[in-house]
This record gives sequence, structure tokens and C-alpha cells, in this order.
Amino acid sequence: MTQSRHAALKLTVRVSPFHRLIRLELVRVKGGRVEMRLPWREEFRRADRSDWYHGGVLSALIDIAGDYAIASRLGRWVPTIDLRVDYLRPAKRGDLTAVARAVKLGRTVGVADVELRDAKGALVAVGRAAYSTSSRPTPDGAP
Amino acid sequence: MTQSRHAALKLTVRVSPFHRLIRLELVRVKGGRVEMRLPWREEFRRADRSDWYHGGVLSALIDIAGDYAIASRLGRWVPTIDLRVDYLRPAKRGDLTAVARAVKLGRTVGVADVELRDAKGALVAVGRAAYSTSSRPTPDGAP
Amino acid sequence: MTQSRHAALKLTVRVSPFHRLIRLELVRVKGGRVEMRLPWREEFRRADRSDWYHGGVLSALIDIAGDYAIASRLGRWVPTIDLRVDYLRPAKRGDLTAVARAVKLGRTVGVADVELRDAKGALVAVGRAAYSTSSRPTPDGAP
Amino acid sequence: MTQSRHAALKLTVRVSPFHRLIRLELVRVKGGRVEMRLPWREEFRRADRSDWYHGGVLSALIDIAGDYAIASRLGRWVPTIDLRVDYLRPAKRGDLTAVARAVKLGRTVGVADVELRDAKGALVAVGRAAYSTSSRPTPDGAP
Repeated sequence: MTQSRHAALKLTVRVSPFHRLIRLELVRVKGGRVEMRLPWREEFRRADRSDWYHGGVLSALIDIAGDYAIASRLGRWVPTIDLRVDYLRPAKRGDLTAVARAVKLGRTVGVADVELRDAKGALVAVGRAAYSTSSRPTPDGAP
Repeated sequence: MTQSRHAALKLTVRVSPFHRLIRLELVRVKGGRVEMRLPWREEFRRADRSDWYHGGVLSALIDIAGDYAIASRLGRWVPTIDLRVDYLRPAKRGDLTAVARAVKLGRTVGVADVELRDAKGALVAVGRAAYSTSSRPTPDGAP
Repeated sequence: MTQSRHAALKLTVRVSPFHRLIRLELVRVKGGRVEMRLPWREEFRRADRSDWYHGGVLSALIDIAGDYAIASRLGRWVPTIDLRVDYLRPAKRGDLTAVARAVKLGRTVGVADVELRDAKGALVAVGRAAYSTSSRPTPDGAP
Repeated sequence: MTQSRHAALKLTVRVSPFHRLIRLELVRVKGGRVEMRLPWREEFRRADRSDWYHGGVLSALIDIAGDYAIASRLGRWVPTIDLRVDYLRPAKRGDLTAVARAVKLGRTVGVADVELRDAKGALVAVGRAAYSTSSRPTPDGAP
């Protein structure tokens, strides 16, 4: 993992309109381990009277972090084949941290594991996703 | 499915801050079939130079539609146990339509199937999710 | 779907030692729809005092039927990327029937949906699996 | 984890007809970690000319090991809600070892993670499954 590749990935966090919509931050990429942070926003609540994250925010974060874990090893973006998320406990207000790593980096398929923790470090969700590593790069050179 | 229950669910689409963030619309609830629409927005693109939806938008939409399919049958909100999404082809700019229905409505677990189509009617993703039907209602009475 | 391809697939049901161990039968392959039958055996019970199938039998049957659905369309065997099974209700003694069809047949990935029914026609489990369609054929020419 | 509970679980490995059919062995239960072994048999091959395990054997082993991980913590058997298996590389002839642990032990749902290794210690598959912890015990007191 070179510094320049980290920089390239960090850049992409910023240039993705969806990442900007949710204000996602890339914290660290090191040795195949990717750490991301999602700062809390009131817009992420599942209901007006709720203090809990909407599950859709968590699944999006898991998909993205897993993709970065594979991409950081391959040096290019890969499309998601499928995504699986297990919600372990309600995620309450506060920043979320996702840590992802590649479980497999094959010729045709990559698999990533992701752990999602709340601001107190409690595990709120785990995810696993498969990515297509044999696909042609996207025409727009984007994730 | 009474009209009043539909109204109650429609109301909740509006009162969820996350649903408002992505501007989700509930189109129809009939006989256990739930149809939702997500109008296209530039913020949903996966990259500035891309015309494709970010996968995180699709997985969130699938989770929500499945939840509504179970909730419309039970008359109350249920927490998601786990979510699985298969991305079948890139979803390009244009409105998305999700159609969800319950496959199982058990004493402890409900399972929903969701189909996601692009503006031309092409199937872009399928999802399946398990929901906890024996959980106590959320303290805030919200999804 | 030609008759000869059906014959080839039927042959393979017989030449797989694991298929013979569980005595799996291929019933029909038509238009991409694959139907398999697993005749009941006392060895499939989850416990000596139980009348229910062991879940491991159901998941194996779903994996196989899905693989055949993709293989029947491609004319060659494909390795499974991942498998997901939802158990909807206990499967009691009696023959099981699996019906599988391809949801996607891509250049790199195929996805199959499988429904598993008991002898009375009740849906006991549903499955979905992804298969690698770009993999080189197995050296032994076998599933 | 008391010795008596381990003994009870070991007993059940023997009394399940399906476990006897595949000759599954319980190696160790300690601190919520369950280790199982499946001795190689020619009947597990995916084809007569193949040296590889049939995927159905792997998924069954993962489901069982995960169930034992939850059961060893709860002291009773729990039905599987859903099972997900990622096949990472072909599993060749030789004994398989499954190691499972609970990721979540909730009031209504338990989640287990399972790693499956071949005789050389290589990771051949990973699995995750959800189990219903609020279900009434099965009438036959069996897994």
C-alpha cells in the first residue's frame, strides 16, 4: 500500500456525490485494512422521535468500506456482486466507524468482511460482500 | 389492508429523516405488496463522471421496502435481522421502483423479497431480508 | 434446452458421489427451469426422535439445484461463489422438490433462485446463490 | 461451559441420523468456541473424477457448527433462520475442520460465524448464520 494509492482512494471519497451526500470520511488504509468514519447527522435517524440510525445508512457504509478494502489491494474499483448485512444491535446517535479487510482476493471474485462500531466501540453490525475482480474497469474510472 | 393503515405507513415515509434525506416515496400498498419509488437525484451517483447509482442507495431502498412489506401485514414496525442484496446490472440515472412482498410471516421471523427496477423496467437488483416479528415495538414507535 | 443437454445433466446427477450418497434425482430441465427431487430417507432426520429434515440436507439441495439452473443455460458447470438459504418452516418427512431458475446470466456472475417444497407442496425454504460464470472449466470436467 | 454440557452436545452429534450419515465429529467446545471435524470420505466428492468436496457438504458443516456455537452458549437447540456461505477456494480431499463462535446472543436472534479449513489449514469457506433464540424448544428435544 503506497501513500499515493491511499491518496487516490481518499480523493475518490470526495468525488463521489453519494459519499458527499452522507459526508463519509476515509480514516486510514494500511496493510489491506480500511477504516472509515461516518459523522453523526440528524438526517440519519430512522424517525423524528428516534435516536437510532436508519439501517439503510449502515448497509451503505458496509458496502462502501468492503469495496475500498478490495480496491486498496487491487488498485482499482470493483463492482459489488452481492452484499449481506447482519444488524446486531441498534446504532444510536454518534459517529460510526467501519473497519474492512479482504478475506479473499481471487482472479474472479473478492470477498470482504466489515465490522461496524458505534461511538462507544460496540459492534452494531457486521457485513460481508462479494466483488467482481475480473470485471472491466468502469468506463468512468469510478467506484 | 385498510386505507387507514396505508395512510399511517405513508405518513411514516415522511416523518423519517433518512427517508426525507433520500426523498423516498411510497407509491402503493395493496394485498401485502408494497411499491416504492426513489426519484433520481444527482447526489445518488457513484462518481462525478458517472451516470450510475451508488450501490448504497439501492441496498437502503431494498431494506426499507422489505420492512414495509412486513409492517403492512403486521400493522407495526419490525427491526431488520439481516439483509442480502444481489446487484444484477448497473442502475443508471432515472427513477427506481422497488416492489416488496412477504415470503414468510412467522411468530418470530418474517422474510421479505424485493425487486428493484430502473426507469425502463429492467431488474437491477434483488434483495431478501429477515425481520424480527417477536421484538417489542421500538420505544419511539418508529420504524 | 436440447434433449441431449438434459441427458448430459441427468448423467452427472448419477456420476457425482455426493449426489449418490443423498440419492438425488433430476426430474426435469425445461426453458431454464430445473426441477429436482430428493426422496425421503430416515438418515436425513435431524434427530432420532425427530420427523424433520436436517437443515444441512436442504441447503445442499438448494446449492445443487441453483447450480444446475445456471449450468443448463450455459452448458457447463460453474463454481458457487456464495449461497444463501432462508428456512421458512420445518420440512417434515416426505420427498422434497427443488425448483430453480436463473435470475441473472452475466459474463462473470450468474444468480439463481431456488424454491424448496415438501411433499404437500408447502414452501419450506428459499435460496439464492451466485455462481462464477467466467471461471475456467474444472480440470475434471465435473460440477 | 461445563463438562456435562459438552457431553450432552457430543451425545447429540451421535444421535442425529444426518450427522451419522456424514460421520461428523465434535472435537471441542470451550468458551463459546466450537470445533468440529469431518473426516474425508470418497462419497463427498463432487464427481467421480474429482478430488474436491461437493459444496453441499461444506454448507451443511457450516450450518451445524454455527448451531452448536449458539446452542453451547444457550444450553438448548435453536432453529436456523438463515444461512450464508462464501466458498473461497476448492476444498480438496482430506479432513475438514470447522470453528464456530457466537457473534451475537440476543433475546430473539443469535448470529454465528464459522471458518472452514482443509487438512493443511487453508481457509476454504466462511459462513454466517442467524438462529432463532426465542423459539420454543422443538417437541422432540432435538437440534
